[in-house]
Amino acid sequence: MAKKNSDKKDSTKKQKKGSKAKKVRIGVVDTMFARYDMGQAACDELAICPGYNKTFKVVTQTVPGFKDLAVAAMNMIEEDGCSIVIALGMPGSAPIDKQCAHEAAQGIMQAQLFTGTPILEVFVHEDEASDPKVLASVFENRSRKHARNAYWMLFEPEQLRRRAGQGIRQGFDDAGPLQLK
Amino acid sequence: MAKKNSDKKDSTKKQKKGSKAKKVRIGVVDTMFARYDMGQAACDELAICPGYNKTFKVVTQTVPGFKDLAVAAMNMIEEDGCSIVIALGMPGSAPIDKQCAHEAAQGIMQAQLFTGTPILEVFVHEDEASDPKVLASVFENRSRKHARNAYWMLFEPEQLRRRAGQGIRQGFDDAGPLQLK
Amino acid sequence: MAKKNSDKKDSTKKQKKGSKAKKVRIGVVDTMFARYDMGQAACDELAICPGYNKTFKVVTQTVPGFKDLAVAAMNMIEEDGCSIVIALGMPGSAPIDKQCAHEAAQGIMQAQLFTGTPILEVFVHEDEASDPKVLASVFENRSRKHARNAYWMLFEPEQLRRRAGQGIRQGFDDAGPLQLK
Amino acid sequence: MAKKNSDKKDSTKKQKKGSKAKKVRIGVVDTMFARYDMGQAACDELAICPGYNKTFKVVTQTVPGFKDLAVAAMNMIEEDGCSIVIALGMPGSAPIDKQCAHEAAQGIMQAQLFTGTPILEVFVHEDEASDPKVLASVFENRSRKHARNAYWMLFEPEQLRRRAGQGIRQGFDDAGPLQLK
Amino acid sequence: MAKKNSDKKDSTKKQKKGSKAKKVRIGVVDTMFARYDMGQAACDELAICPGYNKTFKVVTQTVPGFKDLAVAAMNMIEEDGCSIVIALGMPGSAPIDKQCAHEAAQGIMQAQLFTGTPILEVFVHEDEASDPKVLASVFENRSRKHARNAYWMLFEPEQLRRRAGQGIRQGFDDAGPLQLK
Repeated sequence: MAKKNSDKKDSTKKQKKGSKAKKVRIGVVDTMFARYDMGQAACDELAICPGYNKTFKVVTQTVPGFKDLAVAAMNMIEEDGCSIVIALGMPGSAPIDKQCAHEAAQGIMQAQLFTGTPILEVFVHEDEASDPKVLASVFENRSRKHARNAYWMLFEPEQLRRRAGQGIRQGFDDAGPLQLK
Repeated sequence: MAKKNSDKKDSTKKQKKGSKAKKVRIGVVDTMFARYDMGQAACDELAICPGYNKTFKVVTQTVPGFKDLAVAAMNMIEEDGCSIVIALGMPGSAPIDKQCAHEAAQGIMQAQLFTGTPILEVFVHEDEASDPKVLASVFENRSRKHARNAYWMLFEPEQLRRRAGQGIRQGFDDAGPLQLK
Repeated sequence: MAKKNSDKKDSTKKQKKGSKAKKVRIGVVDTMFARYDMGQAACDELAICPGYNKTFKVVTQTVPGFKDLAVAAMNMIEEDGCSIVIALGMPGSAPIDKQCAHEAAQGIMQAQLFTGTPILEVFVHEDEASDPKVLASVFENRSRKHARNAYWMLFEPEQLRRRAGQGIRQGFDDAGPLQLK
Repeated sequence: MAKKNSDKKDSTKKQKKGSKAKKVRIGVVDTMFARYDMGQAACDELAICPGYNKTFKVVTQTVPGFKDLAVAAMNMIEEDGCSIVIALGMPGSAPIDKQCAHEAAQGIMQAQLFTGTPILEVFVHEDEASDPKVLASVFENRSRKHARNAYWMLFEPEQLRRRAGQGIRQGFDDAGPLQLK
Repeated sequence: MAKKNSDKKDSTKKQKKGSKAKKVRIGVVDTMFARYDMGQAACDELAICPGYNKTFKVVTQTVPGFKDLAVAAMNMIEEDGCSIVIALGMPGSAPIDKQCAHEAAQGIMQAQLFTGTPILEVFVHEDEASDPKVLASVFENRSRKHARNAYWMLFEPEQLRRRAGQGIRQGFDDAGPLQLK
């Protein structure tokens, strides 16, 4: 139980850094390619978070496909001053789509490291569900949950700490924790 | 419906940056390896976009194969002042070709992040259609559609926003959006 | 037996660099996604290492999933002054999970190279054991062993040297060394 | 037919940059691992290009295996002043060899982006032909063709432009272009 | 036979750079995970190279596993002044081990490009031989051969040039060259 004595990282630092005179900015970037308006779902969730348009505001952009997300997210951080970005896309179901998703995800990973700023990759694979209505609900749920995660990362990191190792999922039900004995 | 209130990113910024005295530049780089003149198709589409050779002009280059696209595109941005580049290539159908396509795509991804500038990767895989005429039409259509996307990204970002989550495709018919209920 | 004459790298350098007035910091970053509180296990092990809260202290953070570990670890080094970070996560068992694990691991690799600082990637794959209790013990054991490795790397590098080529494992039993003859 | 009106990128820029007082340099790096003297084939082709040892000269190096090509090529650019490098290697036929080839190719890709200079990756996979004599001819032909490509990229870019989309190959016969109708 | 007239890259440059007042340094980094003391084998070979402890000396470090090699090797170059590093590790035989080996190898590749300095990746895959004694001999032989390669790269590059395209192997017998006719 040593953890309670450990130093808590001050996750509001980036928030402060960006909030001199203007509001903290959260970026939302989505694609024409996806078959669901993931960006809208993320924006809807952010709109019901505390401080919407007061403490923070939302910047949006749409790009052609998921491979275009990384540089767009990077520019939202470096040029638009976003403190975090939610990058939403839908890889298709063919093998080559998996490879493309890999390239897109690697780009998002690198953009985070180049900027030192989190970019939440929110991908729904077209083959995660065969029923279009189920798939649509995965799009809606995962986009909203990660928008909430972005909010927590900036403003309520203790919400994340509280759920450490709890098998939390976005899009489907939580998996729950395992027991040692 | 919170999105309508959100901040729209000003996508014409790069355009302005590059347009002090000279025209905005759009780069088109293609290969000897491809079995279709993809660069010509992209140039043909750009030639019918508003402002061609007035607001913007096109810079072209041809390299041996698709692995040579990334550094060429990067140099078109850094040395020739392009605000966006369309990188066109054709991976073959063997397993090793998929791996090479992966390397080429990763390079294009990194070139974007190194320059902070979009490079639209336009790849037509040789095995996307068995009928040569169908394949040729995929080459023509995808090259043109992405050239149009490049134009939109610089000059009409609202065209992209309007199509967010609509299952838009290049080369084949659009997939269309899914319904939540 | 030439090695005994070779130069021993002074592994306490980083320690000194970070310890002017304040304690050396060890970072522990874990996820909500994992089904075991890996961060707690790592912290428990560090709490029984010599010098805990005297020579060194522990900084913790929780992120949503394992793809969020890399930039978080990087920031714990660059902003919080950690001399080493333990990054703990659980990839799922589906093929796409392996791909995501690959992306997460590549990010952690790059974060190390960008910072010049070790980040110990501690991943337990959900399919390493079918019995939940066995899997839980792998989580506990591997998290603790790598926490101890982190401590050794900073303060007792001779512990590592002594075990070179000995087939040491974390999570399962050691494999042991092979004999030439 | 808009392309004819477009701006031609001046590909001789790098040449000029490097040719103040001294000759342009073309790098050739090969391996001990390959089963054919690819570097010699490339050098033989360059020796019959116009301006050999007048306009340009050739710098050579041999490394152990193809994973050692990337940093060697990078240093030939940054330390020896090469304007382009031809990197020649032979991946083996086992699955692990394909993975190693992937790593080597990624390194060559990154070296290009780090230096802003083309490095032509010339790999002959050991399983491209079962007949040793056929395989040897692939080695010879591909090494020479890419050496010629390197020369064209620096001195005669119109040779590349003229062949855009023509299905040009190195090592085997050209595939030729597809027809739209 | 044009090659004989070409410029030979002066491979002793790095050596000179590092040898103002102090000896050239060769780094050797190995792991606890491997089942053979690869670092010792490399050091034994270096100890019988000309100039050992006169012209050059050896710096060693041991890390937990092969994913920890890249940043360690990078620091041996940047902080300890090594002119080349030999990075030795043993990936396991499961599919996930191949993926981890890939990540480790990519890291070593990037570390080379970040530092502009060669790092010889010496991996022995646990499934290269089923007989433990044969496998042990692969460990010993490959580690020694690459240590010798490192020495040649710094001090006798003509040894490499002489073997270009000769199908040289480490760990197993040489494959030999193919004949064109």
